[in-house]
Amino acid sequence: MSSSIEALQSELNRLRLEVQTLQGTRGSERISVGNYLLARLAQLDVKQMFGLPGDFNLGFLDLVEDHPIMNWVGNCNELNAAYAADGYARIKGTIGVITTTFGVGELSATNGIAGAFSEMVPVLHLVGVPSTQELKSRPLIHHSLGDGRFDAYVKAAEQFTCHQGHIRSPDEAASVIDKALMECLTRARPVYLSLPTDMVDQEISSERLHTPLSRDNILNDPETEEFVLNLIETKVKEANADVVVLIDACVTRFDVRNETMEFLKQTGFPVFAAPMGKTAVDETWKRYGGIYIGSITPPEIKSHVEKAKVIISIGSLQTDFNTGNFSYNIPTARHIELHSNYTRVQYGTFNGIGFKQLLPKLTERLQQFYHMASKIPVTPYVNRLPQESSQNITQSWFWPRTANFFKPGDVIVTETGTANFGILDVPLPAKSTLISQVLWGSIGWSVGAALGAALANQEKSLGRTVLFVGDGSLQLTVQELAPMIRMGLKPIIFVLNNDGYVIERMIHGKRRKYNDISNWKWPQLLDVLGDRKTETMSYTVTTKQELNSLFESEVFSGEKCITMVEVMMDRLDAPRLLKLQAEMTSKSHAYASAD
Amino acid sequence: MSSSIEALQSELNRLRLEVQTLQGTRGSERISVGNYLLARLAQLDVKQMFGLPGDFNLGFLDLVEDHPIMNWVGNCNELNAAYAADGYARIKGTIGVITTTFGVGELSATNGIAGAFSEMVPVLHLVGVPSTQELKSRPLIHHSLGDGRFDAYVKAAEQFTCHQGHIRSPDEAASVIDKALMECLTRARPVYLSLPTDMVDQEISSERLHTPLSRDNILNDPETEEFVLNLIETKVKEANADVVVLIDACVTRFDVRNETMEFLKQTGFPVFAAPMGKTAVDETWKRYGGIYIGSITPPEIKSHVEKAKVIISIGSLQTDFNTGNFSYNIPTARHIELHSNYTRVQYGTFNGIGFKQLLPKLTERLQQFYHMASKIPVTPYVNRLPQESSQNITQSWFWPRTANFFKPGDVIVTETGTANFGILDVPLPAKSTLISQVLWGSIGWSVGAALGAALANQEKSLGRTVLFVGDGSLQLTVQELAPMIRMGLKPIIFVLNNDGYVIERMIHGKRRKYNDISNWKWPQLLDVLGDRKTETMSYTVTTKQELNSLFESEVFSGEKCITMVEVMMDRLDAPRLLKLQAEMTSKSHAYASAD
Repeated sequence: MSSSIEALQSELNRLRLEVQTLQGTRGSERISVGNYLLARLAQLDVKQMFGLPGDFNLGFLDLVEDHPIMNWVGNCNELNAAYAADGYARIKGTIGVITTTFGVGELSATNGIAGAFSEMVPVLHLVGVPSTQELKSRPLIHHSLGDGRFDAYVKAAEQFTCHQGHIRSPDEAASVIDKALMECLTRARPVYLSLPTDMVDQEISSERLHTPLSRDNILNDPETEEFVLNLIETKVKEANADVVVLIDACVTRFDVRNETMEFLKQTGFPVFAAPMGKTAVDETWKRYGGIYIGSITPPEIKSHVEKAKVIISIGSLQTDFNTGNFSYNIPTARHIELHSNYTRVQYGTFNGIGFKQLLPKLTERLQQFYHMASKIPVTPYVNRLPQESSQNITQSWFWPRTANFFKPGDVIVTETGTANFGILDVPLPAKSTLISQVLWGSIGWSVGAALGAALANQEKSLGRTVLFVGDGSLQLTVQELAPMIRMGLKPIIFVLNNDGYVIERMIHGKRRKYNDISNWKWPQLLDVLGDRKTETMSYTVTTKQELNSLFESEVFSGEKCITMVEVMMDRLDAPRLLKLQAEMTSKSHAYASAD
Repeated sequence: MSSSIEALQSELNRLRLEVQTLQGTRGSERISVGNYLLARLAQLDVKQMFGLPGDFNLGFLDLVEDHPIMNWVGNCNELNAAYAADGYARIKGTIGVITTTFGVGELSATNGIAGAFSEMVPVLHLVGVPSTQELKSRPLIHHSLGDGRFDAYVKAAEQFTCHQGHIRSPDEAASVIDKALMECLTRARPVYLSLPTDMVDQEISSERLHTPLSRDNILNDPETEEFVLNLIETKVKEANADVVVLIDACVTRFDVRNETMEFLKQTGFPVFAAPMGKTAVDETWKRYGGIYIGSITPPEIKSHVEKAKVIISIGSLQTDFNTGNFSYNIPTARHIELHSNYTRVQYGTFNGIGFKQLLPKLTERLQQFYHMASKIPVTPYVNRLPQESSQNITQSWFWPRTANFFKPGDVIVTETGTANFGILDVPLPAKSTLISQVLWGSIGWSVGAALGAALANQEKSLGRTVLFVGDGSLQLTVQELAPMIRMGLKPIIFVLNNDGYVIERMIHGKRRKYNDISNWKWPQLLDVLGDRKTETMSYTVTTKQELNSLFESEVFSGEKCITMVEVMMDRLDAPRLLKLQAEMTSKSHAYASAD
């Protein structure tokens, strides 16, 4: 099967590079360390580099600016740059890169990198550090802690990256770079790579570049795999094919969307998604039944999932907001879990059996059940626009209405807060992609992420980029709208203006001032952040009719230029699912007052 | 002497609290843990709390909002909040407090906390964390890394705080809080304090609150101190009182401005300041000669400092940007260093001899030299406005011109970049205070810091708050202008618009695109970020005449409302000192290309 051949080829390449590392790479072609890194990134189809200039990375940025493929995205701050690299990686399906400077720059990105760790997004954090000479003598230079601890930043980074690489001599530079990129890709986690100022222009052999890096080099052990396949086949047979499949985040993170879709097509099993897995499988797929989120799932979906004799979950990540506060009602005895590097069948764990190679084989084994599985009825997941007499734009009306505005291929970015929950209740079109940060939940993420996503979208020509962000969240990272304008990107940005932090109000402090914010003049903002050349459009809608008219107008849907729509909403209104979730979260805090 | 009595009283209080910690505090008056912390902060004259709401700190924010003294400053993001707490601490002379939430919130503040560590500013980072129950069971909740490592954030914080306190039971809560605050104050470094949701409202004895916390409890050993005093007296005698005093950052950080000024008055020694010590001594003082910054010092100052037979430095911090790249030409044989917790005389170090108690005694010992020392001529540090034929606003003209606009008591905040260097060449008025981040040098800091400084300034009624920030730096933290407007603060904000990152251009990449930024419509910004009630004023000046007219206009100097002045400057112009410093920094990087 093709995925096995790819895996063998990957493993071969990995070993070839290993041999070169041990023997020392020879060859007369030379390349600078900085350009070697850029060449590797270009091979991995990385075309954007996010970050800010700082005096320890300027020499490297010369190479970036002169590179034929790499585009330097000057962000407005490092946290936003990390978010952008995260958004780019999610949509592009490769590594997102952020480049910062020693101390001040790298530490500003901490929360963004930790978010990518938590949510399993491959982000390379490249840090320009002082020269190897200064790293040894540790003078009291600016951007240092003043006490000579030059390793403090790396120690912090160790907490939030799965690997740390340090280029300290030309001899080892290429293998350090390759190792960092491979760790990033195969583990789908951020990696830290430090590049001293004096290493950037050192010349090394370019020989290794002839052997490509590839991510899928984990080979399943054939005997164990065979055992697992037999075991799953038996379980499904015993269950008379009464199976549901539950899709989650890691299907996207480890690039098994195609394998998963093929599995679903050939077996005909009903399929549902966890919140973080939304759009990992096309929501228009005829056997797709919607979102399962534990105890707060709509009853018909809940009973279908929980009553199945076997539940096969693919790429699951059981976090509180992803499971209705851990309220999954799926007994281990009926659960089969397929993960990137292990498989669980009921109570037994099979380490090293990853889904990339397992899924195609499982498809072959289980397609025999198609005739039975495909007859299991699935309640269609359709959009329902409620009839409301008031002209106020409510959360319960806004999301279904907006769902009708989406087009196939749209890239949709939702912010933690009302948007993340509102979007869960509506189906999205074919080939559309939703990205959000359900586990990490850092407010402001969506703005930087939308920048990265829009650039990846542009490269892949997927569709429009549509961002939903609350007024509170947008204030955290607002400056990142400027690079969007400067680069001529054309996202549609819905600013849900409900006068503060509604997600917090739902959890605690409904009428507290600390959940209030300044009310900015949103429709003027794009103009102020503009570059005086690029056109921008801004609207405010306060009634259902105004939003309807806007959606129907030719100029709006045409994606002519970057567009902001301020949507006026009630400060105590929230999507159904957020209300339910917030109530559960609030209880776990045990505060004395219950407001 | 009074400082010794204060120190004895402090030590007595410290021991009383120690006894209470060991015995367990009894007493029938009760207070909640959250309110105990607020009471302690109020005792230390802390009246502002910076930060953002997050679901793990909402219960505590109820108490803050209801507190009679504490004001909750809702910042726009956590990095800005950390900068604001830093700026508040510097001007108020007490602890600055930032409150964040578990994971996402606290990590966003990392760079701001590290900066306070580096620059020695007492900042309390209070983090709302999950309930003690959840901290034990470590579920996969939102804001977690997804792998159960609940200690990762603290491990990162250990790198950038001098102490970490964790409230985990009501019994120990008060002593944990007291310890954290004392460490923060006495070491002038940030401290991390975690407060679980379920601890906020636990009731404890308020008995300890009767014993105040005080910072000056380090007692110099009398015998060693006597030895040091004799030694210094001998050295000064041998030098025939040919002494200069060099003032630096820690004079402000450890609150010895009064002791230092008294020393200078009674001895008559000529005095100079390092860049980080600027305004620690009034620059109008008749014996003050200006800024010493190693090899890039103006010749007359350089030769005066370096030719003195004895140089007494008070609170020195020898960093690259503070010393002209470590080019101090002060031989150890002629150097006496007074620090917060040790004294160095030539080659000998005397640990535990701190300047707070030493200075008054040293004043007594050395006042005998007044008649000789006061006759040493000091070249007056005066402002020189250059005559330039062009109407362009140059860096060399702007700073002297602006210096004439300053008033006694002004609080001046300068951003890393051209402002930090430009301000060094001009004298500032009596009782004015300059704050800047010379060592850490994180661009964007000044905006958050100005918010904190303006609030402290308002409490102390010092004068106006004047901020100088480049257009590049302002983009990093721009949203923090909004809380200034919302709270009716009235800073004057000079935006030096030179179309990008000039400090980087000076170091490397003069004509590189990566040092460019979007050109925002600055004069419209305050209006957009306004709250639709508060008035704002904005100007753009492109010629010397326009700036002169503005400075002379009644409405402008009246500090009527928050005011922004966009100053158009050339993209390759920089202050004299920045050009010199950048050249040295650039050399240490060893990049291949020299642009």
